[in-house]
Amino acid sequence: MRVGDVERAAERIAGHARRTPVLEMSPGLFLKLETAQHSGSFKVRGGFNRALAAREAGALPEAGLIAASGGNHGLAVAYAARALGVRAEIFVPTVSSPVKVAGLRALGAEVTQTGEIYAEAYEASAKRAAATGALEVHAYDHPDVVAGQGTVGLEVLEQTGGVDTVLVAVGGGGLVAGITAAVAGRARVVAVEPELIPTLNRALAAGGPVQVEVSGVGADALGASRIGRIAYEVTSAAGVGSLLVPDEAIIEARQELWRSCRLAAEPAGAAAFAALHSGAYVPAPGERVAVIVCGANTDPATLGKRAG
Amino acid sequence: MRVGDVERAAERIAGHARRTPVLEMSPGLFLKLETAQHSGSFKVRGGFNRALAAREAGALPEAGLIAASGGNHGLAVAYAARALGVRAEIFVPTVSSPVKVAGLRALGAEVTQTGEIYAEAYEASAKRAAATGALEVHAYDHPDVVAGQGTVGLEVLEQTGGVDTVLVAVGGGGLVAGITAAVAGRARVVAVEPELIPTLNRALAAGGPVQVEVSGVGADALGASRIGRIAYEVTSAAGVGSLLVPDEAIIEARQELWRSCRLAAEPAGAAAFAALHSGAYVPAPGERVAVIVCGANTDPATLGKRAG
Repeated sequence: MRVGDVERAAERIAGHARRTPVLEMSPGLFLKLETAQHSGSFKVRGGFNRALAAREAGALPEAGLIAASGGNHGLAVAYAARALGVRAEIFVPTVSSPVKVAGLRALGAEVTQTGEIYAEAYEASAKRAAATGALEVHAYDHPDVVAGQGTVGLEVLEQTGGVDTVLVAVGGGGLVAGITAAVAGRARVVAVEPELIPTLNRALAAGGPVQVEVSGVGADALGASRIGRIAYEVTSAAGVGSLLVPDEAIIEARQELWRSCRLAAEPAGAAAFAALHSGAYVPAPGERVAVIVCGANTDPATLGKRAG
Repeated sequence: MRVGDVERAAERIAGHARRTPVLEMSPGLFLKLETAQHSGSFKVRGGFNRALAAREAGALPEAGLIAASGGNHGLAVAYAARALGVRAEIFVPTVSSPVKVAGLRALGAEVTQTGEIYAEAYEASAKRAAATGALEVHAYDHPDVVAGQGTVGLEVLEQTGGVDTVLVAVGGGGLVAGITAAVAGRARVVAVEPELIPTLNRALAAGGPVQVEVSGVGADALGASRIGRIAYEVTSAAGVGSLLVPDEAIIEARQELWRSCRLAAEPAGAAAFAALHSGAYVPAPGERVAVIVCGANTDPATLGKRAG
C-alpha cells in the first residue's frame, strides 16, 4: 500500500464520496468531519473504491455487491451500490436491531438475517457470493477498501495545509492503514483504540494479528475482533503506535463534540478525539493535530445526555 | 454598511469566533456550517465585534455586556463576555424555559427573569444598562453587530472560491444585512423567511419596517416582530428579494440535513435550505449556491423524528 494507491482511489471516488469539511476547533486542532459523509461514516470511500476499481477492470458483476455487516460498513455498501445502480446484498446476524435492518432496506439493499453472531453471517455471505458471483466488499482487509479509506488522509493534508499528527480510531484497521499510507513521510499517525477493543495494541505486542475480546461503547462500529492483515503490515512497518482510551473518556469526548461544536458523533467516531480531550495524548507546543471524527450513525436522542 | 466594515469586523473577531467549515453537499451546493460556531449559532460573531469595537474605543465598561434574549443571542453574548473576561447580564421573560436559563447560567451569565413578553424584558434591560453603564448588545439593529454577522459572507466567498447566490434566513435581519454588505457586487443574496414570520417581506411591501405577527417553528430564533432598520436599508437598497417558505418545508429540510449530512440544525437554521429542498428556489443550470445553516441550538432528540 503506497500513497499512489490512495491517490488513484481519490481520483476514482471523486464525485461519488463527499470531500468532507474540516473544522479548526481551536488553533492548530483540526477535526475532519466524516460525520457528514454519505451514509454517515467514512466507510463509503472504501466501498466506492472497491466497486469502481472492479468496474474499471470489467469485473463489476451483474449480481452486484455483497457484504456482511449490520453497521456502518453495511450502510456504506448499500449506499454505494444504489449510487452505482447495482444490487446490494447485506448479511447480518439475527440479533441485529430492526432499526438497522430497516435502514439497510431503506437504501435498497436485500437483507438476509442469518447466524447468531457476525462470523456466521459472514460465512453465509461468502457462500452466497461464491454462488452468485457478487463482488465481496470486505469491511477492511482488502487493498481497494484500504486505499479508499486513505483518501481521508490526503484530504486532511490538503485542507489543513499540513499537520504534524493524525489521530485515528481503529477497529479492523482499514482507516488507519489507508491514512498511514496516504500521509507517509508527511505526518505521523497515532492509532487510538478503546481499552475494550485493543485489536492493534495486542497485535503489536504479539508481533502479529491476534484474536481479542471486544466490548464497550465502541463495539458496534469498532468491534472487529482481530486487526486486518493489511492494517497490521502497514501500521507496524510505519511505526504507528496504539494509544488506549477508556470508555468513560469516549463518552465524555462525544459529549464535548456536541457541547462545543454541535457535532453528532457515534462513540467510535469520538474515540480519536477522546485521546486529546482526556489528556491521554498531549500535543507539543505548536504541534498541529488532525482528529478524524469518523462516524455519526448514532441515536441523536442520546447526544444531550450523559450516557453514551 | 460597506464591505470595509465587515472586513474590519473579520480582523477583530479572528481567533474569537470560529471560521466555520463549508460542506459541498452536492456539486455547486455549499452549506456554511454556523452550526459548529461557538454557542451554537452565528450570533457570537456580532457579539464579539460589538464588544471588541467598544474595547478598541476604550468603551468596554466594567459592568460588561447586557442583552435581552432567551435564545441564541443571549447565549452568544454570554459566551463572548466569558471569553473576554467581562460580566454578562441577560434579561429574559418569565416564561423562558428553565433549560434556557440554565444554559445561560452555565456560561456564567447573570440572568434576570422579568416581564411576561420579550418587549418587557428588553425594556428592563435598557433601564438596567442606563443604571450600570453596561454595553447594550442589540440582537440585530446595531452596525457593529451587523458587520460581525457579515463575516459569514466573506468566509463563504473565500471558502467556496465564489458563488452566484447566497440563501439566508431572516428574523431581525442582522445576518442578511451583514452578508449583503459583505458580498455586494460579487454574489446575489436571497432572503428566506418562514411564512409565519415575514418581517422583511412585509417591510418590502410596505416600503419600510412594519410590525408583524410571528409564530411557527422558527419563532424561537427568528421571532423578531419587525425587521431591523439597518437590515431594511441595506437589503432594500441592494434589491434583496424575500422568499417565503411554509413551516412544513422547514421541518422537512431539517430532517434532510440530518438524514443526508448528520447535521443538527434548529428549524430556523434549516429555513434557508428549505427554500432549495422544497423547490421554492430552483437554481439555474450551473448556478453555484451557498446556504447558511445558521444555528443548531436544538433538542437533538427531535432530529430522528418527523416533527420539527
